[in-house]
Amino acid sequence: MSGNGYGHTFRFTTFGESHGPAIGCVVDGVPPRLPLSESDIQPWLDRRRPGQNRFTTQRQEADAIRILSGVFEGLTTGTPIGLLIENTDQRSKDYGDIRGTFRPGHADWVYQQKYGIRDYRGGGRSSARETAMRVAAGAVARAILGPGIAIRGRMVQMGPHKVAKRRSRWEHVGDNPFWCPDPQAATQWEAYLDGVRKAGSSIGGVVEVVASGVPVGLGCPVYDKLDAEIAKAMMSINAVKGVEIGAGFAAAALRGEDNADAMVPGRKKGGVRFLSNHAGGILGGLSTGQDIVVRLAVKPTSSILIPGRSVNAAGEAVEVVTKGRHDPCVAIRAVPVAEAMLACVLADALLRHRAQIG
Amino acid sequence: MSGNGYGHTFRFTTFGESHGPAIGCVVDGVPPRLPLSESDIQPWLDRRRPGQNRFTTQRQEADAIRILSGVFEGLTTGTPIGLLIENTDQRSKDYGDIRGTFRPGHADWVYQQKYGIRDYRGGGRSSARETAMRVAAGAVARAILGPGIAIRGRMVQMGPHKVAKRRSRWEHVGDNPFWCPDPQAATQWEAYLDGVRKAGSSIGGVVEVVASGVPVGLGCPVYDKLDAEIAKAMMSINAVKGVEIGAGFAAAALRGEDNADAMVPGRKKGGVRFLSNHAGGILGGLSTGQDIVVRLAVKPTSSILIPGRSVNAAGEAVEVVTKGRHDPCVAIRAVPVAEAMLACVLADALLRHRAQIG
Amino acid sequence: MSGNGYGHTFRFTTFGESHGPAIGCVVDGVPPRLPLSESDIQPWLDRRRPGQNRFTTQRQEADAIRILSGVFEGLTTGTPIGLLIENTDQRSKDYGDIRGTFRPGHADWVYQQKYGIRDYRGGGRSSARETAMRVAAGAVARAILGPGIAIRGRMVQMGPHKVAKRRSRWEHVGDNPFWCPDPQAATQWEAYLDGVRKAGSSIGGVVEVVASGVPVGLGCPVYDKLDAEIAKAMMSINAVKGVEIGAGFAAAALRGEDNADAMVPGRKKGGVRFLSNHAGGILGGLSTGQDIVVRLAVKPTSSILIPGRSVNAAGEAVEVVTKGRHDPCVAIRAVPVAEAMLACVLADALLRHRAQIG
Amino acid sequence: MSGNGYGHTFRFTTFGESHGPAIGCVVDGVPPRLPLSESDIQPWLDRRRPGQNRFTTQRQEADAIRILSGVFEGLTTGTPIGLLIENTDQRSKDYGDIRGTFRPGHADWVYQQKYGIRDYRGGGRSSARETAMRVAAGAVARAILGPGIAIRGRMVQMGPHKVAKRRSRWEHVGDNPFWCPDPQAATQWEAYLDGVRKAGSSIGGVVEVVASGVPVGLGCPVYDKLDAEIAKAMMSINAVKGVEIGAGFAAAALRGEDNADAMVPGRKKGGVRFLSNHAGGILGGLSTGQDIVVRLAVKPTSSILIPGRSVNAAGEAVEVVTKGRHDPCVAIRAVPVAEAMLACVLADALLRHRAQIG
Repeated sequence: MSGNGYGHTFRFTTFGESHGPAIGCVVDGVPPRLPLSESDIQPWLDRRRPGQNRFTTQRQEADAIRILSGVFEGLTTGTPIGLLIENTDQRSKDYGDIRGTFRPGHADWVYQQKYGIRDYRGGGRSSARETAMRVAAGAVARAILGPGIAIRGRMVQMGPHKVAKRRSRWEHVGDNPFWCPDPQAATQWEAYLDGVRKAGSSIGGVVEVVASGVPVGLGCPVYDKLDAEIAKAMMSINAVKGVEIGAGFAAAALRGEDNADAMVPGRKKGGVRFLSNHAGGILGGLSTGQDIVVRLAVKPTSSILIPGRSVNAAGEAVEVVTKGRHDPCVAIRAVPVAEAMLACVLADALLRHRAQIG
Repeated sequence: MSGNGYGHTFRFTTFGESHGPAIGCVVDGVPPRLPLSESDIQPWLDRRRPGQNRFTTQRQEADAIRILSGVFEGLTTGTPIGLLIENTDQRSKDYGDIRGTFRPGHADWVYQQKYGIRDYRGGGRSSARETAMRVAAGAVARAILGPGIAIRGRMVQMGPHKVAKRRSRWEHVGDNPFWCPDPQAATQWEAYLDGVRKAGSSIGGVVEVVASGVPVGLGCPVYDKLDAEIAKAMMSINAVKGVEIGAGFAAAALRGEDNADAMVPGRKKGGVRFLSNHAGGILGGLSTGQDIVVRLAVKPTSSILIPGRSVNAAGEAVEVVTKGRHDPCVAIRAVPVAEAMLACVLADALLRHRAQIG
Repeated sequence: MSGNGYGHTFRFTTFGESHGPAIGCVVDGVPPRLPLSESDIQPWLDRRRPGQNRFTTQRQEADAIRILSGVFEGLTTGTPIGLLIENTDQRSKDYGDIRGTFRPGHADWVYQQKYGIRDYRGGGRSSARETAMRVAAGAVARAILGPGIAIRGRMVQMGPHKVAKRRSRWEHVGDNPFWCPDPQAATQWEAYLDGVRKAGSSIGGVVEVVASGVPVGLGCPVYDKLDAEIAKAMMSINAVKGVEIGAGFAAAALRGEDNADAMVPGRKKGGVRFLSNHAGGILGGLSTGQDIVVRLAVKPTSSILIPGRSVNAAGEAVEVVTKGRHDPCVAIRAVPVAEAMLACVLADALLRHRAQIG
Repeated sequence: MSGNGYGHTFRFTTFGESHGPAIGCVVDGVPPRLPLSESDIQPWLDRRRPGQNRFTTQRQEADAIRILSGVFEGLTTGTPIGLLIENTDQRSKDYGDIRGTFRPGHADWVYQQKYGIRDYRGGGRSSARETAMRVAAGAVARAILGPGIAIRGRMVQMGPHKVAKRRSRWEHVGDNPFWCPDPQAATQWEAYLDGVRKAGSSIGGVVEVVASGVPVGLGCPVYDKLDAEIAKAMMSINAVKGVEIGAGFAAAALRGEDNADAMVPGRKKGGVRFLSNHAGGILGGLSTGQDIVVRLAVKPTSSILIPGRSVNAAGEAVEVVTKGRHDPCVAIRAVPVAEAMLACVLADALLRHRAQIG
């Protein structure tokens, strides 16, 4: 009820603070006899891990995942999967500043107001460190979905700079530190982000995640629509301020005849083929079998070297500068997290579908 | 598990099809001793009701709400509130066309694929008729929130035409059939929508909903963030394709120092005042006490007179024209529905907060 | 969260008070394409209906069930099934007594303490009238379970008088007004209960419900064990004070070698046959394929003509006599309700099993 | 959805197998600013720990609990509390027997049927080892309940031997290895259980748990009745086959005037005093303020040295003897577990109550 988990049939619950002894999660509802080991999870964590280049925070964590339960002789057993990562990079430093000051744009002040207490070290529970467990759960979700469903993410906008759709290719995504599908944009972004970083500032971005091979009919038709579940899952990622599916906000400016995706008979008997995908793979809350296309807006991190106005615990006006290790563009690290969340939403939808439809 | 309800502590579950005998819902978790009667619910339904002008579908329903339980001598008792609306405008017509044809842009085909059966009459469960129950539940939610929390909605874009922020005033919203806060835009929209309607077409729009007076600290910090719950609730409304909070997608292009809302000491001892509201009233998943600002993108309805390509039940290519009563811009009717959903999210968050914090 | 529903994947939520306009429920998660009509539900309600002989309350209700949604052309559609029964026998009488008095052994006083308000008419929400909706939901559950799973109930003890196991036959259950499987006991009970009734008193009883044909492996192994779910469902029935599975409380006096049910190879390749059923069809929280055997203790109703000591709304000592229509042995009417609840538990377990195992 | 957790508002989810690397749980929904440290949890675990005398299994585990999150500077923060116990006594032994054989009376066979795989080492997930986490979560629940609510358990029957009510005193419970409140019975049990143990057999028992100081009105009135929640929680404990509240099964033989607890005005203005407690502290699903009295029947463990008939993985008839460390009477160790579960049910009920009633 405090909302530290996601999912209904496939459900994971996380715990842990940025500078506590460990972070972890329990993944429940996983079908039995799926091959799973640490080596199926670790690579996804490695993709997310900070400190890999100058554009992400220099926190150095091995983020070594341990499976504590639910797997036996290389196969899931249907019992809950306990996952754990020890926090190894807890610098014993003076937290004096952050202890008594509420950083603007951060959760410090609202946590204090809500709970009357907070673990201020490294942002505590509100730290992006929690997203490591989303990525780990996402790896388990991928094991459920199987190889037929591919989930891929990329950045399509950094600050004011968008990729060109015509130049965008999935195969370019791994060629640059930004998951950028457009090589020309990637070059531009590199210079741009260097400037942002050197200015001690930060910048937002837009991430796009696409799921291919999703079976027709996943989702529930009213409140737990597949797109509603995706919207929740994405908006729950730190720093996300907007989510759209398919044509998204652009659909507002479209006419009905331009927006509705025409259907023609498919090659398979009884199947259909869509001539466009403004729907982003979801109609009436249910998957159509087309690519599910989701975009999320990520705000610039508020942890910057540029002084901001705020208040301290005594209620006095102060100027705040966030020292330490931070990301000039947190949208970059949101890519593997968004992929993982989409995997979790789909795994849950798959099992729910199976419950009702068989 | 089939997702026909919303909420955790405050929870409502709806049932009913467009052309069945009735639609209804059960609202559970309502605190006792709140004044509530049909006359607290009916006005909100009347605002949503179609057929009020030429810009909304001409379906004529009294939509008379009945409270069947949970209220005694004018006060809630803490037991579930059963609500019912009889469907009175079920024209006995020939459904031959829609029965055998899957309308493009509609849920017809995916419902058939998922369930192997569908109540095709008027869209069945996927009809916007279901939203009447959201509005009814929203009225109950408002009773929980009390008069201190105001929730108001308006349209800020119709097709390509946006309102001017500087001309927008809440008091204008009731002056036109579009919930448009900008009188000049309203005039423009009227002519524009007449054109769309006469062309047998439809157009999308953007709705903005604002909650004022929300206490600090509502929401949960990780997966059930207040913005995540809002995103889900809004995306679950028929035809919505995007949701954003505060600066939303525009935040992607902002720098950290421009996006983070500076805080200064407030007038009340220990309180703070924010100098801007890019956050849209939510930080770290918790309400900040500022206005909660949500925008949703509504696609144009696919029910248009312009022929579209589709397939029929036999898998053959057909041309589809949606006859009958329809809205040229369903975003208009989404306004009271979005208000209601925001009320439900906040009522639920309020009770959840109380559970943990007391 | 106010707990007005049961189930996870198959879930129903009820509403309604004894003397309100109607009672009803929403059944969600029902698989599509199951044959269902009012005539599949009404007979179960008729079995439960009071007023059928001198041993049950003389309240006269047709209890005519209406399906409001979720069924189309005689088949379930996978959308929520709305069910409604209008309350037709709301005698307009003076409630003065019950309004200001808390009946001993009833929920009057605790409701008032918890909610600060109560619909005192006929017990309001705490009335056994609510169980009609359990029976209706149970009929839907039976449609999910199919004819291969048989759920049958009987009374095995009335007051101090138990049935003889050796004389008990299911075929006798319908021969008497007590669902008594032992004809000799039935004769004894009739005389006994007449005495109780004439004395203005009431008596408890023990009900046994048995499910046959349940597949192996239903249930969850830890907190949502199948027996745990059954215990909750049964204990949630009005007046139930104890639940046991298989050998139940008698198992406390057994030795391990006497209690453990020996297994031998079954006729089917790989199958097993159990030589006894102390487990009551459940091991480790999972169904074994043997008969699931549940017994529940039902207390005597507190609505009696014999004066009891209590307090009134002013906090003064009063003597209370419950006038009006009441059951001398509510255990009788608990039989169809317990059957229905077991059906609901199993339907839910079946769908949950399918979700995880496929 | 696989049911590895308990609770709604206060909720814990456990993971771990008997012979895996660790067992653990996540406790979510805990209010902030409650004092909590390992030393508040460890003593409860020590009470449950096996190997303390010849009447419990000789497995030797330190069962040292670690708090991994959710506590900061000695106080809860409102974020999830991660708890972990490393399994230190995993004897590396030959599991050949248990691997290929289904022990009668155990979950081995049904696990294999349900999941098609099982971690057979020490019973895997079905091991009583899981109950350590219930006790740990119960310690957190006690922190929520505060010192005003006392939860105490005792054994009231071992095999055929019951305690005498007139001799039973809570202060005797700690004087013997059986949590027996009756010194004379304790002496009898010691000799009796020695005989059972030496015979390589096992015996059942009945445990009674009592909660004092519970506020009036906790619980929900229909499906999530407080007694229904208790029934589920207790029946979910390994080896429990029956649960009763207050008079329980004995209520079946009572008359209404003997069973209904008379109320008289209490000393406090507006308060009431009950003259008896057949209800066991719960009426209409809500707590009455009287002691909540719960009894559970625990079957004899099926792990005995006396050969039992069973089948092996090849489907052949075999004779099974359970070697190794086992409890002659597992009811003894169920006492602290049942106390813990009652604490969890009450903590959850308290927070749920607060959500709706404030």
